[in-house]
Amino acid sequence: MTELAKKRRAVSQVTAEDVARVLGVSQSTISRAFTASASIAEDTKRRVLKTANALGYRPNVIARSLITRRTNIVAVVMDNLTDPCNALFLDALSQRIQNCSCQTLLFIPAAGQDVEDILPTLLQYQVDAIVITSATLSSTMARTCALRETPVVLFNRYVPGLDIHAVSCDNEAGGRLVAEFLIKTSHVRPAYVSGLPDATTNIDRKRGFISRLDELGVTSWLIEEGGDYGHEAGYAAAKRLVGRRDRPDAIFFASDIMAFGGIEALREIGLRIPEDVSVIGFDDVPMAAWPSHGLTTIRQPVKEMAGEAIALVGLGSLESASPEPRTSFIPGTLVERTSTIDRRR
Amino acid sequence: MTELAKKRRAVSQVTAEDVARVLGVSQSTISRAFTASASIAEDTKRRVLKTANALGYRPNVIARSLITRRTNIVAVVMDNLTDPCNALFLDALSQRIQNCSCQTLLFIPAAGQDVEDILPTLLQYQVDAIVITSATLSSTMARTCALRETPVVLFNRYVPGLDIHAVSCDNEAGGRLVAEFLIKTSHVRPAYVSGLPDATTNIDRKRGFISRLDELGVTSWLIEEGGDYGHEAGYAAAKRLVGRRDRPDAIFFASDIMAFGGIEALREIGLRIPEDVSVIGFDDVPMAAWPSHGLTTIRQPVKEMAGEAIALVGLGSLESASPEPRTSFIPGTLVERTSTIDRRR
Repeated sequence: MTELAKKRRAVSQVTAEDVARVLGVSQSTISRAFTASASIAEDTKRRVLKTANALGYRPNVIARSLITRRTNIVAVVMDNLTDPCNALFLDALSQRIQNCSCQTLLFIPAAGQDVEDILPTLLQYQVDAIVITSATLSSTMARTCALRETPVVLFNRYVPGLDIHAVSCDNEAGGRLVAEFLIKTSHVRPAYVSGLPDATTNIDRKRGFISRLDELGVTSWLIEEGGDYGHEAGYAAAKRLVGRRDRPDAIFFASDIMAFGGIEALREIGLRIPEDVSVIGFDDVPMAAWPSHGLTTIRQPVKEMAGEAIALVGLGSLESASPEPRTSFIPGTLVERTSTIDRRR
Repeated sequence: MTELAKKRRAVSQVTAEDVARVLGVSQSTISRAFTASASIAEDTKRRVLKTANALGYRPNVIARSLITRRTNIVAVVMDNLTDPCNALFLDALSQRIQNCSCQTLLFIPAAGQDVEDILPTLLQYQVDAIVITSATLSSTMARTCALRETPVVLFNRYVPGLDIHAVSCDNEAGGRLVAEFLIKTSHVRPAYVSGLPDATTNIDRKRGFISRLDELGVTSWLIEEGGDYGHEAGYAAAKRLVGRRDRPDAIFFASDIMAFGGIEALREIGLRIPEDVSVIGFDDVPMAAWPSHGLTTIRQPVKEMAGEAIALVGLGSLESASPEPRTSFIPGTLVERTSTIDRRR
């Protein structure tokens, strides 16, 4: 046996008992040091972890999971990580999951794959909970998860009537906020550029915007279909809108990325923002605050949404997952920057 | 026992044998259908998965891992997910990991935490391999991983002399490409705006740029310290640079995000891009292609880097992890857009 092989063997044989003996403490102290929620003095914990590491001891969470039936793994299903808003979501979810002494196992559906295709693989990992951000779930699949007692939450989307938890920004209230703000600042012909037509995010933002305008007695609004949430969709829709004879004096884009595309189109034509056209987005991605955009937008309450999602699936609280399926809508806030103007002034 | 409890119990008791009996196939067919690399007709596989799902059967990869000593989980350590370049990396890595029938377990160091702090937690998950994108590793920690036979690869960074795999864009060659391009297009006073001073990415880009300029006989270059890779750092550095009497006619920023900040600063001052100053970035994040930036930049070979990292730790190939620590530098390519000009024309 080589020296390295001997040392490897020695490392793999170190037990909690060994660590306890070296430190002169009980085995249960060792166990508590490795359990995030356990009560133990910070100083003792540090001493145990240091010695355990020096000796090469580590508890096997995977083996433990067969007894506890918990893996401390939460699956997050997400496509298009390079969308800045998705990156915000993933960052907030993962940090929240880590705060509950769990880790995020990432599932990216391949092009053309939907959640149903990856669910069998996902369930093999015996995850403690599933957060789905990229699509919806059929009622059959929702039942499959329920039978397996794996809590599921839809994030940034919901399915009316489906027996499943969901957390979303209150997109309808966000649309209403935008309508109120534009009318208060004396815009007379506001337009909405829609995102993905069937997404609840798009449907709710649009409904809130239009219904609030109606309530305020404004009937001269315009709708332009973007088609999706991307930069090019926003660019093309803005070009079509300002080519009309009844040009809008404010454009509300269904996402910040669309608004950035729209700003490009307006500048290309020689229109000034906000003097000629006010621009509003939705999301508040980091680039919205860059001076070249200075985008007025609705900030998604990303941290609160992540906290609520993780609470609904029963992590991070002393209680377990909420037994009744719940849909939580969390209000966003309007962040005013330089892409909008008060037209009375 | 309630109906639901009965059904739950029934689901948990479904075995591979049950599925095999229903379909009239052998148990090994069931096993092959659930093993990504196994040879099985596509049609049979689909039939097995459908029936297994209907019956509620799923193989337990976690239990299997105790026998195979493989969890099919790869840890990726990454901070700052909202940096668009990191999002590109995570997307490419996760897709590559999935192609090897594994999944990504994400670890985000908290503020002030370094990799050493999270390594004990990480090793508890018995991951098959570790990809570290956010920091470097001490030689002690590298030895700990080696003893546990957990392959580790540094991604987008390397530590000279450390016994550990590393994959990085060839940043020095990238810097040389930029120098050659700017001189070929008749710039006479190029400047480099540096990123994080101690990062290998920054050191290598700068060294390649300056050494190639020297070789080409150009001595009138400028260096401006950015401080980090962010938008504001680029903005401030550009303002300082163009305030000089010997103003540069081209600025090479250590990252695209810095270049976007620089573009803002130049436009604010009233300088035209590229007529007055050419601008080049590094990374090729999606926003570089937006018309308002039209950023000439070095495209990081993200997919190739991810493929190489996963190969080095022994996934995705019939051979196991490369036994000798290897550092791979993969060349990027220059993508020419509208932020640069040929000054001879």
